[in-house]
Amino acid sequence: MSLLVVGSMAFDAIETPYGKTDKIVGGAATYICYSANQFTNDMKLIAVVGGDFPKEIIADYKTRGINTEGLQIKENEKSFFWSGKYHDNMNQRDTLVTELNVLGDFDPIVPESYTDVDYLMLGNLQPAVQESVIDRLPKRPKFIALDTMNFWMDIAMEELKSVMKKIDCLIINDEEARQLSGEYHLKLAAKKIMGMGPNTLIIKKGEHGALLFKEDKIFFTPALPLEVVFDPTGAGDTFAGGVCGYLAQTDDLSFENMKRAIVYGSAMASFCVEKFGTEMLVELKRSDLEDRVQEFVDIVNFDILVS
Amino acid sequence: MSLLVVGSMAFDAIETPYGKTDKIVGGAATYICYSANQFTNDMKLIAVVGGDFPKEIIADYKTRGINTEGLQIKENEKSFFWSGKYHDNMNQRDTLVTELNVLGDFDPIVPESYTDVDYLMLGNLQPAVQESVIDRLPKRPKFIALDTMNFWMDIAMEELKSVMKKIDCLIINDEEARQLSGEYHLKLAAKKIMGMGPNTLIIKKGEHGALLFKEDKIFFTPALPLEVVFDPTGAGDTFAGGVCGYLAQTDDLSFENMKRAIVYGSAMASFCVEKFGTEMLVELKRSDLEDRVQEFVDIVNFDILVS
Repeated sequence: MSLLVVGSMAFDAIETPYGKTDKIVGGAATYICYSANQFTNDMKLIAVVGGDFPKEIIADYKTRGINTEGLQIKENEKSFFWSGKYHDNMNQRDTLVTELNVLGDFDPIVPESYTDVDYLMLGNLQPAVQESVIDRLPKRPKFIALDTMNFWMDIAMEELKSVMKKIDCLIINDEEARQLSGEYHLKLAAKKIMGMGPNTLIIKKGEHGALLFKEDKIFFTPALPLEVVFDPTGAGDTFAGGVCGYLAQTDDLSFENMKRAIVYGSAMASFCVEKFGTEMLVELKRSDLEDRVQEFVDIVNFDILVS
Repeated sequence: MSLLVVGSMAFDAIETPYGKTDKIVGGAATYICYSANQFTNDMKLIAVVGGDFPKEIIADYKTRGINTEGLQIKENEKSFFWSGKYHDNMNQRDTLVTELNVLGDFDPIVPESYTDVDYLMLGNLQPAVQESVIDRLPKRPKFIALDTMNFWMDIAMEELKSVMKKIDCLIINDEEARQLSGEYHLKLAAKKIMGMGPNTLIIKKGEHGALLFKEDKIFFTPALPLEVVFDPTGAGDTFAGGVCGYLAQTDDLSFENMKRAIVYGSAMASFCVEKFGTEMLVELKRSDLEDRVQEFVDIVNFDILVS
């Protein structure tokens, strides 16, 4: 099944307790694409970059089977830039610089060739921009997932509520779920959020794993305990890309298959954080991924006969 | 197999976002005993209380098959008292009052009848007091578990290191594991801590579940997502009591059985937090426990064929 990815492509400059980078390639769509590409090469992209974005990355995308016809390149402008610093607790970060540049007036174009989109992953962007992509597609995809963040809840809640009515699956973190619902306990938060549109909700808890809610069913997967978390940038996008890539590959939206998708997404995210930026994802082999999924099986597997 | 429980028996006064209590019965040994008692009634107790401690609680212990010969009652003194307040994030609390009273010079007495102790659970106490119980037992139990806290790491680290050399299993929370090891990532922390004595380490992460490390193997169980966490007091002790009670009942220290023990401990803790103090534990039926364990099975169970 074909997967359309929408989101930012950008430069990041990252500082963690383990080191710092110059400007490296980042952005939600970048991580989502590399991650989903482990599962499917029937992929399409909608994004915008400036003339400063490396042409060889775009060429590499094409090699990987990603249709970049929907990627706008504004030669005389600059790409989105974000700079941030992580502390020992990698769940928290300070934003040092945000330069919107080309993202400031991003008006997504759906190329005429993008007719057969089955799965749609809307990476974090202004909710009205995300909604415009749904509205501009010639037919509704069979599965629409959306990532967002607290920033949009602060300044564009009505826009967010509007697009939420049109999606199947919302992917946010625990603090965002609390803010969006006004409920502290995640089970209650999930009920309220699923009353706002999506029938599926994935709550990411960083090093504490992820929860999947679908109708009245719940599934939990831990994050693998790693010896080093080098750089968490992009882990959430990599997770989302793994989930949507796996779903597009298997074309099965049952709860049982969604569980598997969450485990594959978590495994992908566990690779992402082991090096700076996209370094691990670019090189990753499918066999390494299968080995890591086996680690997830081993870490949660137990055998109880309930009487 | 017989289980000896050592720890505080006390009064607590608790304030949470959901309400507050007057002085109610609490203390590590109290929670551990009620929890372990779901699994075994071959139990012994070592603790100290003042003349103010309710005689009907002690009578109830005897009814439940708990040998209280090792419980010292100092009629003219007062029981340990703790008062605390929880905020929205139930993982954090402020201590308002700590009155050591009888616990200040607690010198545990091992009655002559306590000869056949197979399993020993040392609840949180001064490490030298915990060690004295091990040293005073006529023969070493086949399994010794110990709970401790950051307070003892601050003021009695050498005592703690000494008793850690004599135990099989350490049960602490994530922040304590970080403090004890000097390592942020829990997998590294676990390696260091297991180099200090215990071959098994359980790291409690509150609402984020628990990790079991034994030699080079790891197991993770989540906490159940609950709609209400009413009062987390005693959840850690209830967890530990469930783990040790299940191990004493099954008398199987294999990694596979320890996994089951962690799941039963987590299920017990999930009941504890649903009402104030020991209220849920006192009334709990085994059939309710089995239903809840089934919820744990359902929430983590998935089926992947790794290629």
